[in-house]
Amino acid sequence: MTDAAPNPLRDPRDRRLPRIAGPCGLVLFGVTGDLSTKKVMPAIYDLANRGLLPPGFSLVGFARRDWANQDFAQIVHDAVKRHARTEFREEVWKQLAEGIRFVPGDFADDVAFAKLRRTIEELDQERGTAGNHAFYLSIPPKFFGDVVGQLKEHGLTERDEGSWRRVVVEKPFGHDLASARELNAVLADVFPTGSVFRIDHYLGKETVQNILAMRFANELFEPIWNANYVDHVQITMAEDIGIGGRAGYYDGIGAARDVIQNHLLQLLALVAMEEPTSFAADSLRIEKQKVLESVVLPRRLDLSTARGQYAAGWAGGEKVRGFLEEDGVKKSSTTETYAAVKLLVDTRRWAGVPFYLRTGKRLGRRVTEVAVVFKRAPHLPFGPTATEELTHNALVIRVQPDEGMTLRFGSKVPGTQMEIRDVTMDFAYGGSFTEASPEAYERLILDVLLGDPPLFPRHEEVELSWKILDPIMEHWAGQGRPEQYEPGMWGPSTADEMLARDGRTWRRP
Amino acid sequence: MTDAAPNPLRDPRDRRLPRIAGPCGLVLFGVTGDLSTKKVMPAIYDLANRGLLPPGFSLVGFARRDWANQDFAQIVHDAVKRHARTEFREEVWKQLAEGIRFVPGDFADDVAFAKLRRTIEELDQERGTAGNHAFYLSIPPKFFGDVVGQLKEHGLTERDEGSWRRVVVEKPFGHDLASARELNAVLADVFPTGSVFRIDHYLGKETVQNILAMRFANELFEPIWNANYVDHVQITMAEDIGIGGRAGYYDGIGAARDVIQNHLLQLLALVAMEEPTSFAADSLRIEKQKVLESVVLPRRLDLSTARGQYAAGWAGGEKVRGFLEEDGVKKSSTTETYAAVKLLVDTRRWAGVPFYLRTGKRLGRRVTEVAVVFKRAPHLPFGPTATEELTHNALVIRVQPDEGMTLRFGSKVPGTQMEIRDVTMDFAYGGSFTEASPEAYERLILDVLLGDPPLFPRHEEVELSWKILDPIMEHWAGQGRPEQYEPGMWGPSTADEMLARDGRTWRRP
Repeated sequence: MTDAAPNPLRDPRDRRLPRIAGPCGLVLFGVTGDLSTKKVMPAIYDLANRGLLPPGFSLVGFARRDWANQDFAQIVHDAVKRHARTEFREEVWKQLAEGIRFVPGDFADDVAFAKLRRTIEELDQERGTAGNHAFYLSIPPKFFGDVVGQLKEHGLTERDEGSWRRVVVEKPFGHDLASARELNAVLADVFPTGSVFRIDHYLGKETVQNILAMRFANELFEPIWNANYVDHVQITMAEDIGIGGRAGYYDGIGAARDVIQNHLLQLLALVAMEEPTSFAADSLRIEKQKVLESVVLPRRLDLSTARGQYAAGWAGGEKVRGFLEEDGVKKSSTTETYAAVKLLVDTRRWAGVPFYLRTGKRLGRRVTEVAVVFKRAPHLPFGPTATEELTHNALVIRVQPDEGMTLRFGSKVPGTQMEIRDVTMDFAYGGSFTEASPEAYERLILDVLLGDPPLFPRHEEVELSWKILDPIMEHWAGQGRPEQYEPGMWGPSTADEMLARDGRTWRRP
Repeated sequence: MTDAAPNPLRDPRDRRLPRIAGPCGLVLFGVTGDLSTKKVMPAIYDLANRGLLPPGFSLVGFARRDWANQDFAQIVHDAVKRHARTEFREEVWKQLAEGIRFVPGDFADDVAFAKLRRTIEELDQERGTAGNHAFYLSIPPKFFGDVVGQLKEHGLTERDEGSWRRVVVEKPFGHDLASARELNAVLADVFPTGSVFRIDHYLGKETVQNILAMRFANELFEPIWNANYVDHVQITMAEDIGIGGRAGYYDGIGAARDVIQNHLLQLLALVAMEEPTSFAADSLRIEKQKVLESVVLPRRLDLSTARGQYAAGWAGGEKVRGFLEEDGVKKSSTTETYAAVKLLVDTRRWAGVPFYLRTGKRLGRRVTEVAVVFKRAPHLPFGPTATEELTHNALVIRVQPDEGMTLRFGSKVPGTQMEIRDVTMDFAYGGSFTEASPEAYERLILDVLLGDPPLFPRHEEVELSWKILDPIMEHWAGQGRPEQYEPGMWGPSTADEMLARDGRTWRRP
């Protein structure tokens, strides 16, 4: 059922031979969206520029626009010029542009899909894409069914022996467990499991991949990575901006579905999982799945969740509107722009260790981090005031920005008496590596083209995540309007109270 | 038997009330030596300047010089101006200078010691030193017996109820176990155990005191601080300079007696010891003593020790003489200027973990550090080449210079495949504390005046250290001339071979 290539992480040639995609092409649905122009198109150029795409690589755009090939090429060109990570080189662009095609049409248009099929067949002849094509659905999920239906209908998912067809989808992976199951059924009806690539771009981030490298390549961390030593874990994704012009997407979705269901639960899974037998997709997924299956909600959801909506006020020196005044947001909206939940992982390793997840818009600062907060030392053989300024040891993985890690621990304050205070040790990617970090999308698109699935959540994970979220969303649905919180601060007071009840406080990252 | 004040580390007032010496004075023997002018006198001024000495503090010099009080005061003044850590303030100096006295005489001169007694009694009257005096023997150990004999003879060790007399001695604490026992007997004959303060100035260093703070105030380190996780420990004290004008002291002593017997074995004890019940002197000493008692030498001393003498050559861009060409060194000298030993600590915690100690002159760089090198992770679930550039995790305590700590661990190299490489996290005193570190001598002299002995090795520790060293020195005595090593490099090839036999290498700090 899976067409995955041999796992290059287990391939001895791994480091000697860079991972380069074989003959292939990509078909992009939803070419005018932000994601396409800001992330997908630039990533394709960056991969080409790094020599990781085949010479005949082809990019086909499909949209309801009256464009010729060169019009679409111009769109891609502008997107690349503006957003590519690597330097613009005319010769790279020229070769890439030669493989750019456009097929006008809407998702119900049989003629257009027939033309798409012909276009792909021509590319296989002209440019040697060898029947290998990925369909990238950068479109609202409600159209997934139409598009994959058409792909099937028009034989676009049929492939010769030795070639492949894959589909790439973006979040949201449904709205709740039921809709996620439907969506997965739609995809599964047309593509085998191993050919469906769900993009959670957090998993493409270097700092997120490094969680596993850090945990399992080192002797240092695993011995203390458990309930004997860990007091709790805080996983934070904070944004300083509001919803901007995205009311249409955001209202009715909210912070929990937008961020906790995917990014934060995936981070939790990586932090909490057992060592996988290898880094092959199946081994990884099994371990992540075990964590998600073991997650339990505290009984009192009123005491272990919090939500809010940002109010009008001042943020970053500017007067800003509240969520309910944003264009396109219903005045009666109960959609949360801040969500915090307390989860437990019922395993031998983590029994009793709360994982606090939070995300929000218009918070104090843009930051994503995982903080593993350790217990206090079981005994302090010091005088009673010596450790008054000592808090908890903590390992903080800075996912973004300032990518790196910080270790907080106690050290003697210089002076003629014993006084111990928190200090930090720091590791920064910038200072440690000359290698530039590829964008998450570069890594993930290359993985799609290589058929390398470890960094893509499978439908089981998506469904388990909804299973965790659904009771919380139901609970909130009965609670009326979320608390308003001041922009530029750190969320609603109920979130602080939630931790205070456990004798803890949120980090101010 | 001990006159120790209540342990301030257990005193709740500790942080609120600075530790200030009560009424007292210090008598300094050997006033013209380097140690007195570069360390002791400046430290006394720095303590006064920080307000940690009593207003009537008095300093009496004793030497075979035809000086008046003001001549000695001038010597102290010049030493302070040149070497004090803190700013020179005329009003502080003036108050200190009022308490400066000088007694001319040699160690056999009864009249001089009688005058010393009268001087002290006058100070008690005039300046309120209240009968509390410390005798600081900054003189060659061969004179210790004469001086403490005279102190006793002339009633200088007699004290009234509630006052104290203490003696301070500097290394070398003997030449071997037998001579150390003799020396200790001489001191014990006159001063009770708790009144003898042996200065190992390494124990006064912030970074050394922090070893215990770091280990026992944190949750992070202790769980991995044992033979399950630690591969080996390297303790290094390297100097880039030669013996300079110190042939008279150094020839016949050598690197092992000069550094390993005291500084490095004390560092080993602090790294390897169990948690003390408190930081009171007795509790600390018990734990250090247990470690030293548990140290065993490998059976084959030829394979587990190394020594050398620096040869002539180039160091730091200068042509330098070899040890055997230094002024005052016998051409036939077999004194080692480099010594390395492998020790085992036969305890449940450390069974099988080698502690490699090394020290030398004319090495690549001046550095003292403790490196705890961890095992490799028991299993690496990565592809075979992914961890080729990953070595061992290590925690390096930088005692001097660049005081701080470094943690080395593996991290994913940015890029589209899994490759793991060593990176470091760093903590630097300079960057973390605004508090300036006092000099080791400030801390230690203040502790003497406070009667606070935790940072002073007791005679048991000194004797245990010689018990470890004696067989090595005996072994070397039968081995002829030490290997010559190139200046500016990292010691003799036998030292490298010694680690290579264990499949390890010395760090190049």
